[in-house]
Amino acid sequence: MSDILARMRATVLHSPGDIRLDTLPDPVLEADTDAIVRVVASCVCGSDLWPFRGLNGEQTEAQQIGHEQVGVVESVGSDVSGLRVGDFVIAPFMYSDNTCAHCRNGVQTSCVNGGGYAGCQAELVRIPQADGTLVTVPGEVDDDLLPHLLALTDVFPTGHHAAVSAGVTHGSTVTVVGDGAVGLSAVLAAKRLGASTVIAMSRHEDRQALATQFGADHVVATRGKEGAAEVTEILGGIGADAVLECVGTGESMKQAFLSLRPGGTVGYVGVPHGVEMNIPAMFRRNQSLAGGVAPVRNYLDELLPEVLDGSLRPGAVFDATFALEKVADAYRAMDERTAIKALLRP
Amino acid sequence: MSDILARMRATVLHSPGDIRLDTLPDPVLEADTDAIVRVVASCVCGSDLWPFRGLNGEQTEAQQIGHEQVGVVESVGSDVSGLRVGDFVIAPFMYSDNTCAHCRNGVQTSCVNGGGYAGCQAELVRIPQADGTLVTVPGEVDDDLLPHLLALTDVFPTGHHAAVSAGVTHGSTVTVVGDGAVGLSAVLAAKRLGASTVIAMSRHEDRQALATQFGADHVVATRGKEGAAEVTEILGGIGADAVLECVGTGESMKQAFLSLRPGGTVGYVGVPHGVEMNIPAMFRRNQSLAGGVAPVRNYLDELLPEVLDGSLRPGAVFDATFALEKVADAYRAMDERTAIKALLRP
Repeated sequence: MSDILARMRATVLHSPGDIRLDTLPDPVLEADTDAIVRVVASCVCGSDLWPFRGLNGEQTEAQQIGHEQVGVVESVGSDVSGLRVGDFVIAPFMYSDNTCAHCRNGVQTSCVNGGGYAGCQAELVRIPQADGTLVTVPGEVDDDLLPHLLALTDVFPTGHHAAVSAGVTHGSTVTVVGDGAVGLSAVLAAKRLGASTVIAMSRHEDRQALATQFGADHVVATRGKEGAAEVTEILGGIGADAVLECVGTGESMKQAFLSLRPGGTVGYVGVPHGVEMNIPAMFRRNQSLAGGVAPVRNYLDELLPEVLDGSLRPGAVFDATFALEKVADAYRAMDERTAIKALLRP
Repeated sequence: MSDILARMRATVLHSPGDIRLDTLPDPVLEADTDAIVRVVASCVCGSDLWPFRGLNGEQTEAQQIGHEQVGVVESVGSDVSGLRVGDFVIAPFMYSDNTCAHCRNGVQTSCVNGGGYAGCQAELVRIPQADGTLVTVPGEVDDDLLPHLLALTDVFPTGHHAAVSAGVTHGSTVTVVGDGAVGLSAVLAAKRLGASTVIAMSRHEDRQALATQFGADHVVATRGKEGAAEVTEILGGIGADAVLECVGTGESMKQAFLSLRPGGTVGYVGVPHGVEMNIPAMFRRNQSLAGGVAPVRNYLDELLPEVLDGSLRPGAVFDATFALEKVADAYRAMDERTAIKALLRP
């Protein structure tokens, strides 16, 4: 059977640390609402590193991986009306029908017909609920625009979600915990929303430089109570109105609350691993926790026009590009933090 | 020494369950920013029941108790400029200078010069930071107005804080967990803020009746998953936009999140005792937690005029009045839930 199928190359995590480009059957339309997309660019997410490092519990079988991609529509099911073969599309990292009650509330990540793709660090991907999920990019897409569009599939809207969840608005003081691609995107998002002061907590020179390029007013290289004291000093004696937690560890969440003023909000988008809350302390200080898995589709109508007119350039987080066959090198670069975020070209 | 001091009657919790009206030295001005207030009405708070029941850890010594009061200014320190002897005042349940950075941010409960009073289920109370804390009620205060003013010291603004923290606004769907005086106040607060549907979770007929009087559109008497299913059914298939958690136990917090839609917010004002959060579940569903100890002073400028013009009548939570010498009966009535909230008259 498999002999008569066309076969594509796709990234497969066989076991923690063992990532390979395998040959798999091409995906096919399974439902009338599906589309098949030929991937033009994909990338490696910080959250891909959790299973790569074996930190998501025991892995029982090989699995395709990757959830960020832009590409060209290859085929559509008979119920797909808003897309045509050849359209250049952005795929938010989860699919959704964009019509259910949760989607209408802007929480497309909880869509009753939604879910995640088979991995898209690959040549082809099947996209369920294609009409609700994919956003068409009008006109010509040149290589200069590509990273900025790719950044809209996850990393920038995720940083934006942290800022929105934390209530960042004109004049807010903001601290960002985490200097990965999401944390850096959160810096850019906070400035875009009008934050008056953004403090990036980072100990790495290359990331500090990008934070500054993205608009950070201050960089704090210390951590723990010392780091929080530095934040407080910069802000004239109190913590930040909003802290954007972009890591997901217990330590980073503690750092976030240490750096927050009474009445402030932590907006968190780092997938939580071993995070515990001190509820009585939060209660006494009226500190809130908001955020979660970013509903990217909800933000694209607002963000895409700014990327297209060049006023928003979130793709600077990609500091390394790999051919798809070098995907293992891309993971290694991310794992060893020699790259901030690795772009993959099939 | 104590013989030459005037002596007042004041409620003292000697040990869990042992509450008495004792005779203590009158409080005196200790700082130039203090005022002494003669209590006109006080009351028993649900949070007073925690130490009364011995649930706040071991009690090592007798302690005065009570934190809600309205009264008349008896004397003021030399630095107090906004109050005159004879003014009728509302005292938020914590004092604050109302000028520090936290106060300016509307979080007077975190005032750098703030704190709690010696108990005010008494004849006299010393109020530190009197200018920042006390709000003068203009004109004559008759007995009909008294419970509504007293409700502004804690119980109504606390319900209001739950609703504000949860983002309740015009058209919101709201579920209230807890049918104590705070929960009932939260019903009234949510309707006042424009909620389209308010569901009160209550199993007690007297409290159901008051919830309905305060504007609840539905009453749900079941709990746990069954209760949450009933909420979801009323709301057309999804949980509430906002759930107001007005109890503070692990069970009530679980109930709150069970009844909340993805993307919704739990506003919590029940002092947390043994509350643990399921952070990964909150993250997946983008559910937020906001609230804490209510910054009453922040809300009085907005709420007092409505009480004075009669459009807001939060005092209906007081369904029993006791003379101060019967304070032990008042505690028993609250403890046994034969009273919703007990008013005390010295």
